[in-house]
Amino acid sequence: MSFMLAEIREQPGAIRRFLDREAENVGRLAAACRERKIRQLFIAARGTSDHAAVYAKYLVEIVTGLPVCLAAPSVFSLYGARLRLDDALILGISQSGAAADTRTILEVNREAGRLTACITNHPDSPMARAAEHVLNCNVGEERSLPATKTYTASLAAVAALVAEYAAEAELAAGLQGVPEWIEAVLQEEEQVADRVERYRYMESCVVLGRGYHQCTALETALKLTETSYLRANAYSAADFLHGPVAAVDEGLPCFVYAPAGRTCAMMADVIRQLRARRAELLVVSDREELLEQAQTPFRLPPVPEPLSPLVAIVLGQLFAYHLARVKGRDPDRPRGLKKVTVTA
Amino acid sequence: MSFMLAEIREQPGAIRRFLDREAENVGRLAAACRERKIRQLFIAARGTSDHAAVYAKYLVEIVTGLPVCLAAPSVFSLYGARLRLDDALILGISQSGAAADTRTILEVNREAGRLTACITNHPDSPMARAAEHVLNCNVGEERSLPATKTYTASLAAVAALVAEYAAEAELAAGLQGVPEWIEAVLQEEEQVADRVERYRYMESCVVLGRGYHQCTALETALKLTETSYLRANAYSAADFLHGPVAAVDEGLPCFVYAPAGRTCAMMADVIRQLRARRAELLVVSDREELLEQAQTPFRLPPVPEPLSPLVAIVLGQLFAYHLARVKGRDPDRPRGLKKVTVTA
Repeated sequence: MSFMLAEIREQPGAIRRFLDREAENVGRLAAACRERKIRQLFIAARGTSDHAAVYAKYLVEIVTGLPVCLAAPSVFSLYGARLRLDDALILGISQSGAAADTRTILEVNREAGRLTACITNHPDSPMARAAEHVLNCNVGEERSLPATKTYTASLAAVAALVAEYAAEAELAAGLQGVPEWIEAVLQEEEQVADRVERYRYMESCVVLGRGYHQCTALETALKLTETSYLRANAYSAADFLHGPVAAVDEGLPCFVYAPAGRTCAMMADVIRQLRARRAELLVVSDREELLEQAQTPFRLPPVPEPLSPLVAIVLGQLFAYHLARVKGRDPDRPRGLKKVTVTA
Repeated sequence: MSFMLAEIREQPGAIRRFLDREAENVGRLAAACRERKIRQLFIAARGTSDHAAVYAKYLVEIVTGLPVCLAAPSVFSLYGARLRLDDALILGISQSGAAADTRTILEVNREAGRLTACITNHPDSPMARAAEHVLNCNVGEERSLPATKTYTASLAAVAALVAEYAAEAELAAGLQGVPEWIEAVLQEEEQVADRVERYRYMESCVVLGRGYHQCTALETALKLTETSYLRANAYSAADFLHGPVAAVDEGLPCFVYAPAGRTCAMMADVIRQLRARRAELLVVSDREELLEQAQTPFRLPPVPEPLSPLVAIVLGQLFAYHLARVKGRDPDRPRGLKKVTVTA
């Protein structure tokens, strides 16, 4: 079997393992954040890990009120800037722990006496050694090049940290339900595999989300690009209406994440506008009235909004995997990519 | 003549006017930032204005060391979060001043006693009224739907503020040279118009930049999408190598911003990798050895790196305009867009 497919399917167990094994490290980091009275988060990450950082921005800001800055890594690594981050938690996210620019940011800030932490699947990596606190994804080796289980585990790490730091019992309890919700999505695999046939010749598409699902849109577009070499553009639905909507032709496939929650009314409006332009709609939702609008509906189980990104992305992963197979690509080994990318 | 073309050509005068007329307001805001001892910037913007915010992130962090957070507007407007931003300058950027979510962010933070400011071409707009300090682009009405002169004026406003706040005489002096450098780029218009013919049937492309030119890549991709309905993907060159490079086919047009500066060596490496994949290269640079690698070179005048985004984007604007004409589109009025987009 393909590594990618095996790893997509492993996710319920992988997240369960993360929650069981890392609770103590999460607790220690949350306590350090409280003791140090952190006033903001500063997160460095690249690629898929950067999408976990986008999730962190929404979850941390909404739940804790702490502002979250996403690092522009070259500000440190190429321009040598040193930022005034005295009351910040500096968080690096990298599945391989090999990202040189992320490591640099942790190193210079740890030397400056700041609280540093990382989320990684390689706790013995150079980046992990640079951080004071390490949250280990604990998902086992990821052998497929497109990251899947390390992504959802990174999101789980973020959610666990926020739940512990803010003493959000509901979020903590919800997190325990994530493996089951992902199981429910995995039950849809056969349907996804059938429906993907329709998109065999798709060469480009748009992926839309908003709010908590900004990260899901970005990550879905990246998976489609890596595995099926699509030109896939992810947009915040709000930014999309500011301009890129002009490029929607009749028949353009638009992958829309619209689960129940605060963004739902706005996403329903986007779906209406896309229908008026006769776009091809793929809708991922738990709302019947939105699923009915789509040529290709994908049903989600109902999940609390802040945790929905850990579950909804599994549909995007399954779609990307099966589309790559239908297109005759090898999703495990996209041409010209290496598992570990070291950018300075 | 097309409004868009007229407005592209107006930019030297427009920036000159901004610099002349707004010096006093810039000075007042910089003084307020020093008096209030701000420790970070928090910027809210959408669409093209968000690309000005990306420029601000690099310039402010590199020159002043103050961390810059780009707002996720829905955190405020849809999720109702209130962030701990006590020592921040809250900056809204919107050419029309009509962006409801940006205005909300200014309002709630001004009520909380924080320093607020905005950059806009409509100083009488709702957003401008919500902010304590207003920097007026002063570029005259922008009648074309794709923003051009308001974008470069917004970048000039950011640079003027940073120069004044950090007492960076070199940056301030350089800013006075921007209108002339833009003139030099405008001299290339005929060449751009000729070369664009080759891309008449282009349907998708990739736009790459890094560091200071991250904003230029994003803005070029948006202009191409708005005016010619291309599927144009902008990437940081570093993120690009983490995955999307897999989607580069032989002949895929890749628009690469590679002016002299700290990112140049890395961009040269990206150009090598794209050549190895037989991509079609459009290179914007002042470096002969990089221009020689391109099927379509666009020559920049030498400009100090921190100000280069104000100049290089003019090539992207001219390219987008002429491509739209060659494709038979009306760049002034992209289908289905309104000049003012109000997202809540």
